[in-house]
Amino acid sequence: MNKIPVGILGATGMVGQQYIALLEGHPWFEVRYLAASPRSAGKQYSDAVFGRWHATGNAAGFSGFSDAVGKLIVQDANDVAKAEAAHKKGDLAFVFSAVALSKDETAKLECDYAAAGIPVVSNNSAHRSDPDVPMLIPEINAAHTGIIPSQQKNHGWDKGFIVVKPNCSIQSYMIPVYALMKAGYAIDKMFITTMQAVSGAGYPGLSSLDLIDNIIPHLAGEEEKSEKEPLKIFGSIEGGEIVSAKKPVISAHCNRVPVVDGHSACVSLQFATGAGSVGTAKPSLEEIASIWRNFKSLPQELQLPMAPEHPIILRKEADRPQPRLDRNNDKAMAVTVGALRPCNLFDIRFTGLSHNTVRGAAGGGILNAELLKAQGFIN
Amino acid sequence: MNKIPVGILGATGMVGQQYIALLEGHPWFEVRYLAASPRSAGKQYSDAVFGRWHATGNAAGFSGFSDAVGKLIVQDANDVAKAEAAHKKGDLAFVFSAVALSKDETAKLECDYAAAGIPVVSNNSAHRSDPDVPMLIPEINAAHTGIIPSQQKNHGWDKGFIVVKPNCSIQSYMIPVYALMKAGYAIDKMFITTMQAVSGAGYPGLSSLDLIDNIIPHLAGEEEKSEKEPLKIFGSIEGGEIVSAKKPVISAHCNRVPVVDGHSACVSLQFATGAGSVGTAKPSLEEIASIWRNFKSLPQELQLPMAPEHPIILRKEADRPQPRLDRNNDKAMAVTVGALRPCNLFDIRFTGLSHNTVRGAAGGGILNAELLKAQGFIN
Amino acid sequence: MNKIPVGILGATGMVGQQYIALLEGHPWFEVRYLAASPRSAGKQYSDAVFGRWHATGNAAGFSGFSDAVGKLIVQDANDVAKAEAAHKKGDLAFVFSAVALSKDETAKLECDYAAAGIPVVSNNSAHRSDPDVPMLIPEINAAHTGIIPSQQKNHGWDKGFIVVKPNCSIQSYMIPVYALMKAGYAIDKMFITTMQAVSGAGYPGLSSLDLIDNIIPHLAGEEEKSEKEPLKIFGSIEGGEIVSAKKPVISAHCNRVPVVDGHSACVSLQFATGAGSVGTAKPSLEEIASIWRNFKSLPQELQLPMAPEHPIILRKEADRPQPRLDRNNDKAMAVTVGALRPCNLFDIRFTGLSHNTVRGAAGGGILNAELLKAQGFIN
Amino acid sequence: MNKIPVGILGATGMVGQQYIALLEGHPWFEVRYLAASPRSAGKQYSDAVFGRWHATGNAAGFSGFSDAVGKLIVQDANDVAKAEAAHKKGDLAFVFSAVALSKDETAKLECDYAAAGIPVVSNNSAHRSDPDVPMLIPEINAAHTGIIPSQQKNHGWDKGFIVVKPNCSIQSYMIPVYALMKAGYAIDKMFITTMQAVSGAGYPGLSSLDLIDNIIPHLAGEEEKSEKEPLKIFGSIEGGEIVSAKKPVISAHCNRVPVVDGHSACVSLQFATGAGSVGTAKPSLEEIASIWRNFKSLPQELQLPMAPEHPIILRKEADRPQPRLDRNNDKAMAVTVGALRPCNLFDIRFTGLSHNTVRGAAGGGILNAELLKAQGFIN
Repeated sequence: MNKIPVGILGATGMVGQQYIALLEGHPWFEVRYLAASPRSAGKQYSDAVFGRWHATGNAAGFSGFSDAVGKLIVQDANDVAKAEAAHKKGDLAFVFSAVALSKDETAKLECDYAAAGIPVVSNNSAHRSDPDVPMLIPEINAAHTGIIPSQQKNHGWDKGFIVVKPNCSIQSYMIPVYALMKAGYAIDKMFITTMQAVSGAGYPGLSSLDLIDNIIPHLAGEEEKSEKEPLKIFGSIEGGEIVSAKKPVISAHCNRVPVVDGHSACVSLQFATGAGSVGTAKPSLEEIASIWRNFKSLPQELQLPMAPEHPIILRKEADRPQPRLDRNNDKAMAVTVGALRPCNLFDIRFTGLSHNTVRGAAGGGILNAELLKAQGFIN
Repeated sequence: MNKIPVGILGATGMVGQQYIALLEGHPWFEVRYLAASPRSAGKQYSDAVFGRWHATGNAAGFSGFSDAVGKLIVQDANDVAKAEAAHKKGDLAFVFSAVALSKDETAKLECDYAAAGIPVVSNNSAHRSDPDVPMLIPEINAAHTGIIPSQQKNHGWDKGFIVVKPNCSIQSYMIPVYALMKAGYAIDKMFITTMQAVSGAGYPGLSSLDLIDNIIPHLAGEEEKSEKEPLKIFGSIEGGEIVSAKKPVISAHCNRVPVVDGHSACVSLQFATGAGSVGTAKPSLEEIASIWRNFKSLPQELQLPMAPEHPIILRKEADRPQPRLDRNNDKAMAVTVGALRPCNLFDIRFTGLSHNTVRGAAGGGILNAELLKAQGFIN
Repeated sequence: MNKIPVGILGATGMVGQQYIALLEGHPWFEVRYLAASPRSAGKQYSDAVFGRWHATGNAAGFSGFSDAVGKLIVQDANDVAKAEAAHKKGDLAFVFSAVALSKDETAKLECDYAAAGIPVVSNNSAHRSDPDVPMLIPEINAAHTGIIPSQQKNHGWDKGFIVVKPNCSIQSYMIPVYALMKAGYAIDKMFITTMQAVSGAGYPGLSSLDLIDNIIPHLAGEEEKSEKEPLKIFGSIEGGEIVSAKKPVISAHCNRVPVVDGHSACVSLQFATGAGSVGTAKPSLEEIASIWRNFKSLPQELQLPMAPEHPIILRKEADRPQPRLDRNNDKAMAVTVGALRPCNLFDIRFTGLSHNTVRGAAGGGILNAELLKAQGFIN
Repeated sequence: MNKIPVGILGATGMVGQQYIALLEGHPWFEVRYLAASPRSAGKQYSDAVFGRWHATGNAAGFSGFSDAVGKLIVQDANDVAKAEAAHKKGDLAFVFSAVALSKDETAKLECDYAAAGIPVVSNNSAHRSDPDVPMLIPEINAAHTGIIPSQQKNHGWDKGFIVVKPNCSIQSYMIPVYALMKAGYAIDKMFITTMQAVSGAGYPGLSSLDLIDNIIPHLAGEEEKSEKEPLKIFGSIEGGEIVSAKKPVISAHCNRVPVVDGHSACVSLQFATGAGSVGTAKPSLEEIASIWRNFKSLPQELQLPMAPEHPIILRKEADRPQPRLDRNNDKAMAVTVGALRPCNLFDIRFTGLSHNTVRGAAGGGILNAELLKAQGFIN
């Protein structure tokens, strides 16, 4: 099978580098088009990232990029016509967008690519609140891609479209929480405290002075996203748009800690009861453990290459998950949970952890693209 | 004025060292008696801690100990008769207890000193749940020393007694929470997530392998203490014992983070309403800020030497308090709070921070002793 | 091909765990015998390491151990008879020794295994200075295994023997230095300053209090090994023993830094001139770069499974090698060098880096065993 | 006594903040004039640094700035006329320069202030290589201020002049090395490997991604300064300029490590022998220890307020100095040394440590100004 040619917008940045590292040897996709800021345009990729390559590699320990990728000439990401020409020649099927522009510039640029017929699988937040743009965690809301035809119609686009992924801060608890909901236990309220890794802020991101012997509390933008984005992901398509769920109500405290990779989340949650609850009883800790251990969803059924075999890994040790020991579990795409116990105020509490630059960024984007291919949106 | 001669049990350990560093130049107390394990007994203190001195010093930048202290001969902490003899000669008024024994051994040893007539100001948890032992945060429950006569009667002690301080994990939010209660706003529920410094686990404590690029979740013993100890501190003396309060109900997630000193706590709290609530309305954020800024209590009125001028420091910046920048505020005895904002689920949320080995350990113990002196229990 | 059954002494410790992680899927060797202290003996391995598993995995991202290994019953490492019985039944061909005993106990235990006919590939320092025990870096002194018959004769052993690997602190510069020597440039003097990772001290090893916002200078034992061991490795077999080389004279400053894995070394070296020098001229920087880039040795020719394709990786960026970015290069078995430049006092200076628990410990031990198999000493 | 009014150029930057923190309560100097970039000009200082205040305080634990300083209006540092007017009114005696401009811009700006009659005590490197500008470590080369009249004559300046301080990377060994030279032991060669704290790179300086679980080798500019600047400091005034010494020849490897404050240096040094050597014998380790313990110089004799009582503190423990434990010794102005031992290649080796933002930056600048006042250059 010929591999599908993919492009990366923002290829020289940290997330772009992670895409390149993770796509090495991908069975379906092949990196063929790299675009970045005008400053890098025209250079060989290997020259453009010389001294700036920070990706720590894929699961096989690969920490660089292939010669073929290194020899690609970086294009100007603003030159949509160039990408359109490549697309028409069959050299570019779709793009991963990891540009680092302002929100408005990103929103416009991604629309320009979609208007040129090029599907955009984005890591950016610019279109996350658009009601006709699916914000995907494939294990949870793969059905939200059903909004794509409405999106195309709204914009007058023929074949292009935009899908996005949510913020990395929510990935450490969304799948475990969804697994309980899918098992019939509606959730009413959730307290979340995140301890987020520095790679989540990009490169250079935060100063080393702020993250040695220190933590930074109250990451304001992260808290808002952590409270709002889950509701869209748990929402449903109604009348041509994605309508956010009303529950669970979430309160998030977001913190930055001296960890390179791996966002942790302390979660307390309360199940719904009475009217509005799917189930009539609350699950026992044993039942929750069983639900988590056995959870599989569409990406596992479709055997998507980037999908973890077990999306949720439950550790029995009292002091797990830990970022350094658990972030790389199952291609760094699994969510590891532990410390499951009753909560004094709500029903249960636990700690969740996921790799923020893999599951929470480039790996999640690749899984989205794999879903789109399996569903026939990309080919 | 002649200074009061004080002793330190566990003088060679980390908390013992911190006591010595903080007591340098103390206006009321003078270190005159040092006791530790039989292994150190008989050595000069300077020899006993050679290569093992880790205290990072008092507010004046002093990071060692005086020649006078260095020349003291370390006694065997188990030799209570020795201490009793010193006490009778007027060379030892009371002891700070920072021994590192089992809970049962600690409980017995502290009783033995009290039985010998020597007041014990303890950092250990052995007697914290005794209903006749006050667990003091002087800004909150100075009145709990009123239980001391009952304790002496229960044990048949003449002049000796035991007071304790609570766990370091709760010090980052107890005074701010109490300030609201004192202003008439009863509190019903609190979610707490702590991010605790490694010095809280003593020396050597945790492995460097566990705290570089990593965090440790679910510190089980810490969570139980964080949920239970506040209720005793908010309790009242009834019928010869301290009866714990029923509210607020607390749920605590406790984590260890790569920070040397300074425990942080993310707090969400809900005020009581209706019956059982002191006040009838909930305070606005402005009112809370004002309550915190203006809070002073008995230690401030008595001008106890170790008392911070402002027990609560409210930072306006969005990203404060931070351990490295705020832990040393006001002799490392102030609690710094910030990020005060509404909570999606409860009423308000904020982050609190205190220095765990000063306010949360030796500094808190010294403040307790100062209170006891001001109240006439020690002289 | 049936795999060779191998055993691990000290299987529950940190290096033992690393052996198990790295041997998963090994093409020649299969872990079949695990031994540890009496405390672990009799337990299933998975139970023995529950809550104590710290190995961060092999190059494929694997961070645990297989079910088959997990189900092995841990033996008492002192029970040599048990191992001998397994050996006679063909269930144990040789052992990797990573026990954590005193030097004398280790020396005796390893001799006991050898006396029982079981080859010992050791990570310990107990036998490193024995003139009839080869201390191997297979790229450098594979020929030193020629001393094994003398060793067997000296001890009266039939088929058993002991080989050792050097200290992890020297692995970051030995191969680059040897490559220059092999190219004809004798070396006279070397200044070495190491910045060593905490995993080199085992688990729990150093306190987290000592390695957050801090470094530890002057690791005394490490400095002595760093100065002495290279001379034995560069030595030659003469009259039935390995006679250490006289040059280069080495001065080492060894430091511990807050890095999890990866020892760095700053090296300044002076080439020999005149009598005693193999070459007559000193190499240019370009020539050195070329020597390093093209260096291959016996493990590469034999295509040993653990051998890196390129034992030396030269980075051109000014600020490399860096531990986090370069330690995993080529299965974490390559030495990465950079910052090659003239020295104000000696001839050249550079920085070298290797992964201390892979190349410097378990991975190096496995490569030694592979060499022994290729040479017919193990089968 | 009325205090001398001082100004700070670059008052909002990290070094500027450190000046303000250290000058709080200074017995001679009072901060009265603050200047920074046009962006901050016109604001109250407290507003200009809101959310950007990073100074960790003076030795008394003070970590902020006084109300009086907070209310000062920040001036545009480029507006030299403004400063000149203040100078003429007696409101500004001299300035500390910590501007963050290009080298050329800094060089010109500092000259403009000097031309306006305002002495400039600079932290910048712009004028360090000027033969008529003294680069001061007052314990070593206080006599170099004798070049100031030549400098004024060369530039045609009346009362203004410029003095500079050396790079922070050399402060951890210069005074101990000078103490040996002063005692008659000339030094021929020195190998230096530095492990430098992140605060040395300013704020934001290095990315947190680069300094968690990592080190950065080969800080190119730092190495050049470390090799060249000592020679000027050890130089002498000849024919109206400072002529650099020829010895010792220095080779420096400079590294950045995950430490907040405190530069460490591993030093091996060789004494001169024969012709050119002041002494005829090399000192024993005991003699060196004695020289260091007893070393005092002009700042101590003059009792300059910022001068440490003991410029060199020798620790006997094998594993000292350590940054976190020793950087604050004696107002953070002492150099702490330890691990003194013979060197395999040169004569001796040791590790030195100093606080890079105090002794190595603002504290060193203040000490320079105190010297200038004591010598009558400032009043």
